[in-house]
Amino acid sequence: MSLTRVQHFSISLDGFGTGEGQSLDTPFGHAGERLHEWMFVTRWWHQLVGKPGGSGGIDDAFARRHDVGIGAEIMGARKFGPPGWHEDPEWKGWWGPNPPFHTPVFVLTHHTRPSIEMEGGTTFHFLNASPADALETARKAADGRDVRLGGGATLIREFLAARLVDHMHIAVVPILLGRGVRLLDGLEGLEKDYEIEATASPSGVTHVTFTRAGV
Amino acid sequence: MSLTRVQHFSISLDGFGTGEGQSLDTPFGHAGERLHEWMFVTRWWHQLVGKPGGSGGIDDAFARRHDVGIGAEIMGARKFGPPGWHEDPEWKGWWGPNPPFHTPVFVLTHHTRPSIEMEGGTTFHFLNASPADALETARKAADGRDVRLGGGATLIREFLAARLVDHMHIAVVPILLGRGVRLLDGLEGLEKDYEIEATASPSGVTHVTFTRAGV
Repeated sequence: MSLTRVQHFSISLDGFGTGEGQSLDTPFGHAGERLHEWMFVTRWWHQLVGKPGGSGGIDDAFARRHDVGIGAEIMGARKFGPPGWHEDPEWKGWWGPNPPFHTPVFVLTHHTRPSIEMEGGTTFHFLNASPADALETARKAADGRDVRLGGGATLIREFLAARLVDHMHIAVVPILLGRGVRLLDGLEGLEKDYEIEATASPSGVTHVTFTRAGV
Repeated sequence: MSLTRVQHFSISLDGFGTGEGQSLDTPFGHAGERLHEWMFVTRWWHQLVGKPGGSGGIDDAFARRHDVGIGAEIMGARKFGPPGWHEDPEWKGWWGPNPPFHTPVFVLTHHTRPSIEMEGGTTFHFLNASPADALETARKAADGRDVRLGGGATLIREFLAARLVDHMHIAVVPILLGRGVRLLDGLEGLEKDYEIEATASPSGVTHVTFTRAGV
């Protein structure tokens, strides 16, 4: 069965998945890289960027689930680029010529453009579609494997509100951002559909997993 | 040294310390008792209400810190009674003739009234004062012991914003309330003053402690 998954989406202790003031220089706004530092010190990340070492504990175990079994990603327009990226015909994402996805990636945007084939198996497709329709398209492309919702917070919240998420892993980072985009707004009663587990890491991060009953 | 402490204040996974629609019948609004169920099954609570049994693990260990070393409590007007309690000259709190505080309790309110001496050592005092001034008064009454901030969410947030809190224990409960009063709004950068630790309980609750550096 092909699942719809969120893997290691990080939020602050006060619930923000990204800060305020996103721009070309600050993809996460005033949050900077603080939501992701826990990830950068794992062995998984070190291997990804070709460095030795890295921690091999619980943070690494959760981080490693990012790519396993994934056949496609859906991301929001604000993950693909800074405000106004659609006005730049040359914009191909933040990740250079060989993005770390290695699957079809569906960018939800009101400003569609032709698909872009990158090195390493990543192809960006641009869809102006509802969550349910986008998921149907991505599911076909995933060819039996799972679909990852890559963020940002607004995109994931829309899929949660539409009850389309089977598994979600969020990492709660012990910082208070005060402003930005909250992941869990307007989702009263969400827990009824899921088994929720929390695991505290010695790093200070708490990993919270939502698993839909019966999948 | 007399500290200012928050002990087991419960919030939902989406950050709410109380629900919407507080009334005489629903002190926590639409949240009901769901934020506190983890506490009601501890041995500490069972002993408090004269029942045998109860869990003796991490939830119990944290719950037991509620009263230890406390010489006074400060609470907000919305913890003392439902909206409009100040219009009822007979209102003496939710807790019956022998409230579970057993110390002076300072109620912050714009509607002050004479102090009320209850059974068991609890006396309610009514103050129209800033957090700093209220704390000074409560500190004297605590006679060298600690001052507990008893809630609600608004009261604790005001003391946090004024940087008056030395130790805070919050219990994050895996439910989404969607609406109510958030504890951690508008506190960007709060983590800089504290060591923050998270401990996940098998019950599903995550205990998060804030300890001010150097106290």
